[in-house]
Amino acid sequence: MSSTDPDAGRTVADIGEFAVIERAVAGRPQPDTTLLGPGDDAAVVRAPDGRVVVSSDMLVQGRHFRFDWSKPEQVGRKAVAQNGADIVSMGAWPTAFLVSLGCPPDTPVALTDALTDGIWAEAQALGAGVVGGDTVQSEQVVLSITVLGDLGGADAVLRSGARPGDLVAVAGRLGWSAAGLAVLLVGSVDFPELVGAHQVPVPPYVAGPAAARAGATAMTDVSDGLVADLGHMCTASGVGIDLDSSLLEPATELRAAAAALDVDARHWVLTGGEDHALAATFPTEAVLPEGWRRIGEVRAGAGVTVDGQSWTGAGGWQSFS
Amino acid sequence: MSSTDPDAGRTVADIGEFAVIERAVAGRPQPDTTLLGPGDDAAVVRAPDGRVVVSSDMLVQGRHFRFDWSKPEQVGRKAVAQNGADIVSMGAWPTAFLVSLGCPPDTPVALTDALTDGIWAEAQALGAGVVGGDTVQSEQVVLSITVLGDLGGADAVLRSGARPGDLVAVAGRLGWSAAGLAVLLVGSVDFPELVGAHQVPVPPYVAGPAAARAGATAMTDVSDGLVADLGHMCTASGVGIDLDSSLLEPATELRAAAAALDVDARHWVLTGGEDHALAATFPTEAVLPEGWRRIGEVRAGAGVTVDGQSWTGAGGWQSFS
Repeated sequence: MSSTDPDAGRTVADIGEFAVIERAVAGRPQPDTTLLGPGDDAAVVRAPDGRVVVSSDMLVQGRHFRFDWSKPEQVGRKAVAQNGADIVSMGAWPTAFLVSLGCPPDTPVALTDALTDGIWAEAQALGAGVVGGDTVQSEQVVLSITVLGDLGGADAVLRSGARPGDLVAVAGRLGWSAAGLAVLLVGSVDFPELVGAHQVPVPPYVAGPAAARAGATAMTDVSDGLVADLGHMCTASGVGIDLDSSLLEPATELRAAAAALDVDARHWVLTGGEDHALAATFPTEAVLPEGWRRIGEVRAGAGVTVDGQSWTGAGGWQSFS
Repeated sequence: MSSTDPDAGRTVADIGEFAVIERAVAGRPQPDTTLLGPGDDAAVVRAPDGRVVVSSDMLVQGRHFRFDWSKPEQVGRKAVAQNGADIVSMGAWPTAFLVSLGCPPDTPVALTDALTDGIWAEAQALGAGVVGGDTVQSEQVVLSITVLGDLGGADAVLRSGARPGDLVAVAGRLGWSAAGLAVLLVGSVDFPELVGAHQVPVPPYVAGPAAARAGATAMTDVSDGLVADLGHMCTASGVGIDLDSSLLEPATELRAAAAALDVDARHWVLTGGEDHALAATFPTEAVLPEGWRRIGEVRAGAGVTVDGQSWTGAGGWQSFS
């Protein structure tokens, strides 16, 4: 938006719903998967595979993001990233996003513009369109995102396919977002890289379809925390998973922040969500694709252990707690 | 839910997010378009046409519904119905819904159960699945629905296809929901049929694909009001529409309520949204399918007139106003 734009200093109530939407969609390029973009009763998106992969997430101000900790553009990027991660963790690729936004009438247009810019930036980085949504009045800012994806002829990789003997591997960062949140919570201005990881996760998107092609037997994204999400995989697959702590050494950045905050960096690695890493199981003979690293193995049994021991730290994220 | 269910009297915070979701999905039958239902990172839905039609709406407590005016089950039905109407107004048929729910931690489980029951009831009436969503904490109850639909090989019917000379027709009720809202606003207990129409709209679903088969040149659902939504169609098509007031006589029920409230029933017919009637344009020679009735004609020009005159009543619904 131009700084000379007279509407940038106004509120959504000043300019009205239709103008908010117009600013969100005008001039944004759509990929060729978008057969009909925003503006009609519904959009039409190509589903060349004959199946569509679909997921929704809702983010609430004060609960999932804070505008004093994250810029609106970062909130928009993160919302799209976490939805995109749900698609690649099935072995699919995102094709289109729908964004519904609830906000108070005194919300600055500059805020909704920046949110929208972040949403489009992350969607475009994926080659996906933003094809629809809704804009309504609410007390808090509420962002609801739906993502569609295409499997390209492959089978979806579910949480339920892990088998005893499979190796367990991850792609992407573990604990960075949680560490960044911890830094923000104590009011520190150090560790900008960790804070940045909390503000905008960087899911290892291409690692998802690559894992599917490499024969991954089960996959999930790490949104609630490694132990929690692998726990869901164990439940779905009827297996146990043992993690090897020597393969989960916290990154240098995490160790430095943990020392400064006098906490155990392994807790961030094992329970921190929101990095949207990918975790998958592979047959032992599989060659792990680029970006994947082994962290443990699937065993008969139930639940997640670390070096054969129960993990006694706090679990992952739950709403309403 | 059984009245002996011990959790029915508890809150969502008491039982936790995962239990809320479990209650929403356990034992619900899915249609064969649902290849993978809730429980994984994403769902997989059949898209036999190779395209998917998709739309999202967000509904906020106090703004789009009130639990003193509508039962939670009715709110759920209405949320699904208004999304379903967006799909049929493209000439497609709904295949799957995703539902994200934000609610305060002290929300009774009985309320989320009833909301869910309403959502499933309306989806099942359409033969569609409920395949995913999210559950989060928020200050108000916020419901965000996404619907997927299938075109069955047909072209989507857009708002932009109306041509001068086409006839304009509607299917479904006009003004009933607005009249029911007016009855509720004055605290009356009369006119239960109008109140019921406000609580749960009855979109003429089958009329949408039928209109597409009959050659409809443009179509929309009436969510903001007849004049407002036909105005959007005029803008998209670059035409004007003239309505014939003799073909828009208010129903007996509307006239009775209007007399009791000392208002003009035509205002409800022309500006009332939320009935999710369908409005479409057809070539003059088209035979209107069952359920459709002629109300006017497309002309060169711009905007909506009634009997050739500007309509001076208030326009349709806008957020933030």
